[in-house]
Amino acid sequence: MSKNIVLLMLLNQCIYMNIKVIALISCLCYGNHAWSQKADDDKIIRQIYDEALENGYAHEDLRDLCKNIGARLSGSKELEEAVIWGEQTLAALEPDSVYKQGVLVPNWIRSKKETGYFYSTTGRVNMDLSALGGSVSTGTNNFLSAKVVEVQGLEDLAKMDTNEIKGRFVFFNRPFNEKVINTFHAYGSCVDQRWGGANEAAKYGAIGVFVRSMTNAHDHFAHTGVMHYENLDKAIPAAAISTETANLLSAQLKNDSTLTAYMKLGCYTKDDAESHNVIAEIKGTKYPEQYITIGAHLDSWDLGEGAHDDGAGIVQTIEVLRIFKTLDIRPKHSIRFVLFTNEENGARGARRYAEMADRNNETHIAAIESDCGGFSPRGFNLDGSEKDMSRIKTLREILEPYGLYYFEKGHAGVDIGPLKNENPDILLMGLCPDSQRYFDYHHADSDVFETVNRRELELGAASMASLLYLIDKNMFN
Amino acid sequence: MSKNIVLLMLLNQCIYMNIKVIALISCLCYGNHAWSQKADDDKIIRQIYDEALENGYAHEDLRDLCKNIGARLSGSKELEEAVIWGEQTLAALEPDSVYKQGVLVPNWIRSKKETGYFYSTTGRVNMDLSALGGSVSTGTNNFLSAKVVEVQGLEDLAKMDTNEIKGRFVFFNRPFNEKVINTFHAYGSCVDQRWGGANEAAKYGAIGVFVRSMTNAHDHFAHTGVMHYENLDKAIPAAAISTETANLLSAQLKNDSTLTAYMKLGCYTKDDAESHNVIAEIKGTKYPEQYITIGAHLDSWDLGEGAHDDGAGIVQTIEVLRIFKTLDIRPKHSIRFVLFTNEENGARGARRYAEMADRNNETHIAAIESDCGGFSPRGFNLDGSEKDMSRIKTLREILEPYGLYYFEKGHAGVDIGPLKNENPDILLMGLCPDSQRYFDYHHADSDVFETVNRRELELGAASMASLLYLIDKNMFN
Repeated sequence: MSKNIVLLMLLNQCIYMNIKVIALISCLCYGNHAWSQKADDDKIIRQIYDEALENGYAHEDLRDLCKNIGARLSGSKELEEAVIWGEQTLAALEPDSVYKQGVLVPNWIRSKKETGYFYSTTGRVNMDLSALGGSVSTGTNNFLSAKVVEVQGLEDLAKMDTNEIKGRFVFFNRPFNEKVINTFHAYGSCVDQRWGGANEAAKYGAIGVFVRSMTNAHDHFAHTGVMHYENLDKAIPAAAISTETANLLSAQLKNDSTLTAYMKLGCYTKDDAESHNVIAEIKGTKYPEQYITIGAHLDSWDLGEGAHDDGAGIVQTIEVLRIFKTLDIRPKHSIRFVLFTNEENGARGARRYAEMADRNNETHIAAIESDCGGFSPRGFNLDGSEKDMSRIKTLREILEPYGLYYFEKGHAGVDIGPLKNENPDILLMGLCPDSQRYFDYHHADSDVFETVNRRELELGAASMASLLYLIDKNMFN
Repeated sequence: MSKNIVLLMLLNQCIYMNIKVIALISCLCYGNHAWSQKADDDKIIRQIYDEALENGYAHEDLRDLCKNIGARLSGSKELEEAVIWGEQTLAALEPDSVYKQGVLVPNWIRSKKETGYFYSTTGRVNMDLSALGGSVSTGTNNFLSAKVVEVQGLEDLAKMDTNEIKGRFVFFNRPFNEKVINTFHAYGSCVDQRWGGANEAAKYGAIGVFVRSMTNAHDHFAHTGVMHYENLDKAIPAAAISTETANLLSAQLKNDSTLTAYMKLGCYTKDDAESHNVIAEIKGTKYPEQYITIGAHLDSWDLGEGAHDDGAGIVQTIEVLRIFKTLDIRPKHSIRFVLFTNEENGARGARRYAEMADRNNETHIAAIESDCGGFSPRGFNLDGSEKDMSRIKTLREILEPYGLYYFEKGHAGVDIGPLKNENPDILLMGLCPDSQRYFDYHHADSDVFETVNRRELELGAASMASLLYLIDKNMFN
């Protein structure tokens, strides 16, 4: 037996001793009363998971939302159908109240006729292409055609000479960094190309941009998403292209840097449209004036069915209410179940909700969001005071048997974020499902009901309900 | 602030203090030398994941195996094509040696003509049906027809009267327990119906059995799998039926307990066939006479493409060798990369490998298996001495950043299991991917390449390579 192993064994013993010390100290701190509380909590958490897994409604609700309403972009009649659907589905669960909160949302419309192509050595290559959300058109029935300059991002563009860009398409082609384990971080490092690419390229006189889709997948889906213009007078059209198209275009440019690409987009923006957050409420038994919000966003992009983004979060939020009602869990604090509108291209629902909370002098102590897909839950991103985040981590022991191990500081969600403006100490928690498959479907025609596994979705709902139950019961007292 | 919260805060502080104490003790135990070793390990693990995620071959290898060979049941020409494929793929990576280990395997053959139906109030219902592996036929071109008795398992059957069973079909319909978080445990609680249902029902004079598919999914796939007869003279045919078919049949039986069902199976068993384990070896630099085995099984059922079961494990095993060679990792112990034959209906490859290890007086200290699908890895099942399992858990810290949190006692795998006969203290480790989707595809036509996510598969390979690297370097010295 080597010295290393002896040291390892010593370390193990030290760790075990320390675990025993911790257990002892925990006993001293909690006393018998608190240990029986832990047993009570264990029992309720088990009931929550049982209810979600055995009698869950989330999957059938998602089928209904995806198949009978489908994609629901801000401004569309489908989004307002979803608002009615959400209101009715929540009301059927008999919370204390259900109401809508009106807000004006952007109204960008994709034309069905979107085309892009270029010529390779073997002939015309039709591009898998979708206008980015908010893009201007290429003019009525008009094709733009120009040479193409490939860049690896905004930094790359900034180093270039105006002459190299002027009158051309800029092709933003920096791929996701495959080495990054959490794909949301890879997304975060690439998405500036989509958000700001057209805006920056316009400053150099580019006539349009192609952006490599924000995905790890190698396939033919173009993934749309929001972009912006600082100056609408100088706006140029922008389209996502699939990773396969991007790879072909890049390879072809290496052979023929003078190739001409063609783009036709018919999208346009109308006046803002009326939309609504949908809110269900259960009054708190002990602290009715203190609110915990749990929610997701009802709108989606206009491609696919908005299944993972964010139909999953919506039906999970509704399922949490159903579980609370079915198990007769009566929270101490008031709980708001919120189906936010317009997360994708404006977050106006989120801002409206926070603004009304402020205007009504409401006290918001915590919020939970699900907007990372209906995959197997692995934990929660936390954003709050060090004290609150430490408290949450003590709850991990109860949740580990259900596969929830990850409780770390991180971005909790776009829709609950604005609540921080009112209360900087609010505890925000974002469900973290396994991230590997999310960007295969994100903002693309592939984001359909069939890609959501029933049990993974249900486990996410149970995880949200469990965390809500635990923080309501054990914190903020 | 309530008393509970004060107690919670106290507890947190105690835990933090203890973590500091642990860190201090760890420093004392390891000394500077060992801490720099930890930093070295972190660096290599990062390189392993980078290599798998950025340059991984596993997904393309799996495409090749699934699409160009496909299903590969013991006795089939496809399995022996896969043997050649495996040998060539391993040899191309230039290990120290590659060789085959011959073994006779069962040779059961499914007839393409499998039919089952019954009549409901709305007419004939064709059953989604597949013979269980090893079943006898219903006779040449012969339909069996009989009334159906539904039972909830073998215990249920044991309580019944022979008269209730004799001359009838027994329909085993106990579903997976949805409350169970790890679906392998739900499988373990149901699979006796498939394995022993026909054998037991025959004792009561049943003429055949239908078995509800072993899956959480609600769909139209019949999931096959191995079954057995104690007495071949009294063997009766057995077929899996889809969960949708099972639900329909059960509902119909409630309306009409006298309904007649029809079954036609043309399967048969030929003489045992020659097959092979494929073994690649890297000689250890320090302990060449001590072996660590890493492997998976090359055979599959004859439905689908054997993608998750166990093509995923096969290409991950090959990928571990590729990563070791690419990063020039030279293990201290000899490593065997084994593509086992005949796991599904005999485990003869596994037994042959262990038998040869025994016969050659080899010293086997550890083994790693991947046979739970190509999903996001969450940890490893451990089966070994308490001392070894404790040591493994100290490695968790290095692996948590890659999503590996679960290191608990459990079943490590069918193919490495027989090595325990030779060395009861051997440390066995089974990769634990997320289990939620596994039984959607298990042993069914749905187990195809398209259901395997590239990154999830690659992360599994990197997890196996990382654990192999860590135990080879830090244990058994």
